[in-house]
Amino acid sequence: MVSKKMLDLGNIRSGIRDIYEYGTKLAEKIGVENVLDFSLGNPSTPAPREVENTIRHIVTELSPKDYNSYTSAPGDKNSRLAVAKNLNARFGTDYDENNIFLTCGAAASLNIIFKAIIESEEDEIIVNTPYFPDYKVFIEGQGAKFVLAKCSDDLTLDIAELEKRINVNTKAVLINSPNNPSGIIYPKENIEDLVKMLNRKQKEYAHPIFLISDEPYREVVFEEESPEFLPNLYNNTLVAYSWSKSLSLPGERIGYILVPKKAIDYTDIFAAISGSARVLGYVCAPSLFQKVIKECVGVKPNIDVYRTNRNILYSALIEMGYVVPNPSGAFYMFIKSPNSDGRDFCERAKNYNMLLVPGEGFGMKEYARLSFCVDTQKVEKSINIFRILMDEYNKNN
Amino acid sequence: MVSKKMLDLGNIRSGIRDIYEYGTKLAEKIGVENVLDFSLGNPSTPAPREVENTIRHIVTELSPKDYNSYTSAPGDKNSRLAVAKNLNARFGTDYDENNIFLTCGAAASLNIIFKAIIESEEDEIIVNTPYFPDYKVFIEGQGAKFVLAKCSDDLTLDIAELEKRINVNTKAVLINSPNNPSGIIYPKENIEDLVKMLNRKQKEYAHPIFLISDEPYREVVFEEESPEFLPNLYNNTLVAYSWSKSLSLPGERIGYILVPKKAIDYTDIFAAISGSARVLGYVCAPSLFQKVIKECVGVKPNIDVYRTNRNILYSALIEMGYVVPNPSGAFYMFIKSPNSDGRDFCERAKNYNMLLVPGEGFGMKEYARLSFCVDTQKVEKSINIFRILMDEYNKNN
Repeated sequence: MVSKKMLDLGNIRSGIRDIYEYGTKLAEKIGVENVLDFSLGNPSTPAPREVENTIRHIVTELSPKDYNSYTSAPGDKNSRLAVAKNLNARFGTDYDENNIFLTCGAAASLNIIFKAIIESEEDEIIVNTPYFPDYKVFIEGQGAKFVLAKCSDDLTLDIAELEKRINVNTKAVLINSPNNPSGIIYPKENIEDLVKMLNRKQKEYAHPIFLISDEPYREVVFEEESPEFLPNLYNNTLVAYSWSKSLSLPGERIGYILVPKKAIDYTDIFAAISGSARVLGYVCAPSLFQKVIKECVGVKPNIDVYRTNRNILYSALIEMGYVVPNPSGAFYMFIKSPNSDGRDFCERAKNYNMLLVPGEGFGMKEYARLSFCVDTQKVEKSINIFRILMDEYNKNN
Repeated sequence: MVSKKMLDLGNIRSGIRDIYEYGTKLAEKIGVENVLDFSLGNPSTPAPREVENTIRHIVTELSPKDYNSYTSAPGDKNSRLAVAKNLNARFGTDYDENNIFLTCGAAASLNIIFKAIIESEEDEIIVNTPYFPDYKVFIEGQGAKFVLAKCSDDLTLDIAELEKRINVNTKAVLINSPNNPSGIIYPKENIEDLVKMLNRKQKEYAHPIFLISDEPYREVVFEEESPEFLPNLYNNTLVAYSWSKSLSLPGERIGYILVPKKAIDYTDIFAAISGSARVLGYVCAPSLFQKVIKECVGVKPNIDVYRTNRNILYSALIEMGYVVPNPSGAFYMFIKSPNSDGRDFCERAKNYNMLLVPGEGFGMKEYARLSFCVDTQKVEKSINIFRILMDEYNKNN
């Protein structure tokens, strides 16, 4: 009667959202202040003041038709040009509006890219573990094979592992740095090794292998270290970007796809992106927020709270003996369960009304993900619970 | 290197958008006031004052996190409830938030429905000619066969023709009333005949046949006559709605899917809709406009200009001897070319800087579509050109 695949997806749903909904119900019962909900990547800091003011300015100074009307499918020319110029200033590129396709956020960007490049059911797209669970849904949903390559123990790319997964059907490798769920930024040498390997493999198989860079957390970095700008290192890079996290606009659905002119058959790729966006029903990115982006593309995100939370949590957890990589960006921490059973760890945390997401869905069942995009008070409250949990495990040994 | 299908789609693109872009370039050359551009269905009336005020109110009175945050995938509960209550008051139904799935506009609504119900490549979805061209793109894009049934000469549904197209593979019949491109509202008896026939066929093949009602123009009607509310007449109806035209918000991408509880296996359909929305990358409908809809779902559209334009054009064209059905709703007029060659008619109109869309893309090459969602002045200017064109054709005879 309906598609079995869609029905299963609708019923299984996202594990993250399930926990979030459990938390919402718990909050109704015991009060939101008593639930330490670290499940969802919903930015806790509001949109920066400049963004807030720009929204107000647009809707009070312009007439509705000026901001509510259709734009062209790739987006308003001036908004795309503003994005291109911002990238040019930061990364020494020479992009213009024809390199930028505005989208309804990162999930849209990724699906449009996948649908544009997938040619047959034999095509494979490789993702690195740990990974954002919806990648599997999107890649399989658009008709390719979802292939996993495990990261090294420090959760950076394991180039040898990746290389083993590449074959004649490999269409693309997807990377996500800063990473969800680990917060890791893949280091420069790690990326350089990846690029060398990919170039060698492209030659070997005599066809392009795309590097898809999912970058919603590019701007959310805590130290000097920042993620490499991949199109400058590897020609066949496609970037999927979103302002959901960097400008705290997750509900507004606004992002972009960058197709660099250096990419092979750039014109065809951009045309296929346009066709794919149309087939998926994306008429244009939301028009008011296209205008907001035009003015605010250079605005820096509010990450002070995230940095504070990261610092408090990381030093406390390490001190207690937890195994956890220090997140350089994003707002997630990937914590190894003391007994290497992430689900058990999450269940025990639930007893103290602390909500984490089991690592299983991210491809690593020994771990649990904590989203620290919350009020610092909640992070502080959690410390004692982590101590109690560690004590429980120690007693059981 | 990329998907051939997506590449072709991206390159062919929408005929309507091509003409619109020709018009934009022409306007740069000879001035926008000298181009009679009737190509695009971009509402000429701004969003109603209540909508404008609500947008301003939200962004000035609420804090950014209150309106920029993620909502649940089907949308904010209160917004969905507001939509359900509005339908209940108008159509005597008993819907609640669990019948409404908010989407990024009509194209999203349709694609999500198609992806949810299509089970195999053998599945067929029947569309009535004349039809909105993207239906073909969407249905084929989501993997079913696109089947056409020709309307009667008066452009209402031809039930006998439709019945001939129904077979064991028929998954759904799609209708669109008020219709794009004709403005026709299918009359009550016409719909009743359709429902009888569908019920008979469901029995014959012992499986449900969905009736998909694409309703972006439901609110844009000129007289007492209004389109039937199909879920009250046929249980297996799925409604795809959008506020693009009724509230003049086409760029903001906001609409909904209605899944009535009376539909067979309602729970499975709603779950499959959720799965499909996720696979297509629709995380949630734009959050600010979800809030706007909550307050403005009952707001009446500004259609006075459209009615005036319709009246001026229709009486003038009929008086000149054109064959054209009188649009009861929407803002399109489907005009038969005097020599039954719609493309020729559009080319001749271009000589006078008047832009129409050839009927070919809508499945009827004898016709041309005119969008009268423009300033009345432009409609008045066009009258003389229609007269000149008719004279040209008369001379050639």
